[in-house]
Amino acid sequence: MKHYLDIDDIVSVPALIQEALTLKNLPYAYEALGKHRTLGMLFFNSSLRTRLSTQKAAQNLGMNTMVMNLNNDGWQLEFEDGSIMNGNTAEHIKEAAAVISQYVDIIALRAFPSLSDKEKDEAEQIIKSFQKFATVPIVNMESATAHPLQALADAITITEFQTIRRPKVVLSWAPHPRALPHAVPNSFVKMMQRMDVDFVITHPEGYELNPLITRNVPINYNQNDALKDADFVYVKNWSSYNQYGQICSTDPQWMMTSEKLGMAKFMHCLPVRRNVIVEDAILDGPQSIVIQQANNRTWAAQAVLKNILENL
Amino acid sequence: MKHYLDIDDIVSVPALIQEALTLKNLPYAYEALGKHRTLGMLFFNSSLRTRLSTQKAAQNLGMNTMVMNLNNDGWQLEFEDGSIMNGNTAEHIKEAAAVISQYVDIIALRAFPSLSDKEKDEAEQIIKSFQKFATVPIVNMESATAHPLQALADAITITEFQTIRRPKVVLSWAPHPRALPHAVPNSFVKMMQRMDVDFVITHPEGYELNPLITRNVPINYNQNDALKDADFVYVKNWSSYNQYGQICSTDPQWMMTSEKLGMAKFMHCLPVRRNVIVEDAILDGPQSIVIQQANNRTWAAQAVLKNILENL
Amino acid sequence: MKHYLDIDDIVSVPALIQEALTLKNLPYAYEALGKHRTLGMLFFNSSLRTRLSTQKAAQNLGMNTMVMNLNNDGWQLEFEDGSIMNGNTAEHIKEAAAVISQYVDIIALRAFPSLSDKEKDEAEQIIKSFQKFATVPIVNMESATAHPLQALADAITITEFQTIRRPKVVLSWAPHPRALPHAVPNSFVKMMQRMDVDFVITHPEGYELNPLITRNVPINYNQNDALKDADFVYVKNWSSYNQYGQICSTDPQWMMTSEKLGMAKFMHCLPVRRNVIVEDAILDGPQSIVIQQANNRTWAAQAVLKNILENL
Repeated sequence: MKHYLDIDDIVSVPALIQEALTLKNLPYAYEALGKHRTLGMLFFNSSLRTRLSTQKAAQNLGMNTMVMNLNNDGWQLEFEDGSIMNGNTAEHIKEAAAVISQYVDIIALRAFPSLSDKEKDEAEQIIKSFQKFATVPIVNMESATAHPLQALADAITITEFQTIRRPKVVLSWAPHPRALPHAVPNSFVKMMQRMDVDFVITHPEGYELNPLITRNVPINYNQNDALKDADFVYVKNWSSYNQYGQICSTDPQWMMTSEKLGMAKFMHCLPVRRNVIVEDAILDGPQSIVIQQANNRTWAAQAVLKNILENL
Repeated sequence: MKHYLDIDDIVSVPALIQEALTLKNLPYAYEALGKHRTLGMLFFNSSLRTRLSTQKAAQNLGMNTMVMNLNNDGWQLEFEDGSIMNGNTAEHIKEAAAVISQYVDIIALRAFPSLSDKEKDEAEQIIKSFQKFATVPIVNMESATAHPLQALADAITITEFQTIRRPKVVLSWAPHPRALPHAVPNSFVKMMQRMDVDFVITHPEGYELNPLITRNVPINYNQNDALKDADFVYVKNWSSYNQYGQICSTDPQWMMTSEKLGMAKFMHCLPVRRNVIVEDAILDGPQSIVIQQANNRTWAAQAVLKNILENL
Repeated sequence: MKHYLDIDDIVSVPALIQEALTLKNLPYAYEALGKHRTLGMLFFNSSLRTRLSTQKAAQNLGMNTMVMNLNNDGWQLEFEDGSIMNGNTAEHIKEAAAVISQYVDIIALRAFPSLSDKEKDEAEQIIKSFQKFATVPIVNMESATAHPLQALADAITITEFQTIRRPKVVLSWAPHPRALPHAVPNSFVKMMQRMDVDFVITHPEGYELNPLITRNVPINYNQNDALKDADFVYVKNWSSYNQYGQICSTDPQWMMTSEKLGMAKFMHCLPVRRNVIVEDAILDGPQSIVIQQANNRTWAAQAVLKNILENL
């Protein structure tokens, strides 16, 4: 692959999962591949798992890493074409992307959405601008609408834990005190459509995700009904897509409980708010696989970086 | 050793000092030991010496390092059990510690006390929670009540500079405009009780440290008397322990001067406020060994990390 | 060289340029030179190019790097001699510089001017204090009055792109909404006086740079006249030197346009404000060499670090 911006950049999902699992067994097998190569990690937003796991993945491949918090360490960037830059922005993305491309071999980027301007968020201005003006591959470490490294880790985790050929996977909305982006559910939904699973989404009415992404995936507004006989339950909050960025419900009935979970494995991308998204009993019990899921962030990132390095 | 949380984790103080001095002579002798190992350095507070010396120590051992300022770069952590996380905290320590453990081989941690809630500070919630929920060793880079890497560097420095078998060591309180923690004096007091020294503490009445730590160490409220015939004088401010976190005195008479110091060597953990804690003449003169003491931070950290790596 | 604080530290400009161009062709030829050596990069201010290119340069030479944002990560430093430190500063430069010197082999430093106190800025207190109290070489990553790594990259770029033996180089002032330092133009002016070029400066009256730096360089207040037959036009804003740190003009007539540029190559140190300093057409056209110029930051830094490492 050239860039890794979204799930669509994956040629074969099963092959990439297999690659990741191989790397998990032999983390240093391709240490020579990244020699004299540098990963530039640019953060516009907070990060824990992504920051550490992607850095680890790069180091496992023998790469150097340089980390920058763009908001604090550097200059405020301008993304509009033709703007007269006499305000707060000090550097245009055209220069920034082209310049950084000369110091690193791959750029990994995190840039959250505004959740106030749907059109702008969907335009993915930051990551698309980097893609356009950089001369090196771009890896999406969570953009306005996609978190494909997370979704790849999710797919690896399901593959590891599935005990039947075609497991039932449920994406179940949960309440949250703050308005959250759609990046994680979007990429998860896209990924599930590339896997051999029985997939259903459940959420309160009004919480429909972008229909261009959910397409033919069944949506069931009855959570208990949707959860029946699930093998994997992926719980996640997102803000409204139709009333863009709004919190339309904080109904605690949608919190995941042991009773609702049944025999299924519990998944979440983390960070997770305990006793708001999910009750303690699940996270502290044997059905939660969130820690293993987070572990797979490293192997997801490493498989992607390896793939990109091989095509440099 | 498994963890390095406090002085009590040291089996043999002389052996660990000897280890550090050997590493000081041959910094790269164990470079193979840390290959493919990563040290995660997590900071809740400012750091200069600890940050640089611990990173250097890890690199000398061939380790990779990943540094995170947890307050700015990541998510606000929840430490209370059973809490309903609908407030400011976005991630529970249970997940954070378990997840980070999968990306690094050792976690080093800095977390200062509140100085407002004695019970909470003494519970050492942050570092104890990491210890409990992490699956890798924890190194204390200064917690609410202990700074054992500093105390080990102090012990190495005394060993290097002592000219008699059993030197007299004085810990002397000094004034400071801000309320400071007890971590450094606590660990120093514990360390001195593990060494073959004649140890005495001097401070104004009301500045007694935790009696469970000072135990049988003589306390002399008369500074001049305490300093008599001292070989090493360790000057340090701390806030009141009894009137917890309060500043009960800023009496400039307690500042260390050349006259009071006599022939003794001057020690301080740094950063040090000149002409408040100690007069310029001492720091700029030949009796100050604070720079050498800071140098030994590297070898203290390296001895500890080596020990932990050997027991992984 | 021992330190790299200013252009004057360069023995032979042509030799150092040649060194940089050789490294550009063979970036890893001296990878053994930096083994077991650490570059400490200390930032008091924002940085993108300097941060990434200097780190890259060090890694190309096999060095470890440790990066610190001194304002946020560490302690506030005191620079005054003899001060009674009972205010906001927690650590004196005497200790800080001496201590850091023990953890790293070279210190690279960025510290911008106040632009409010000319005398203090010109005293270069921060970088001079580090030089005085550190025991390792200091590299200037932009100080109050000089940016010699930038100027070296500029010289490399001119050397690469010149098509005649003695090109005409014009430094042309441009408007900017904020008061900017003199470091970049100062070092560029000094560098041009060390090269075989026909050099002229153009700016509005009242924007004269420090006459001790411009010395015999011709200054032409008529921009069009100055630009005639130019081979390289270096555009840059700076605040007034005489009315120190003031903005005396924001006259948009001084913005660089394609028409004014003629056949010359366009240079700028970046970040650049589009359509304020220079119009889009130039930056997006073939005469702009700002990206190549930024690329040379790596080789400038690498030549300097190599030189210093060879003299350690």
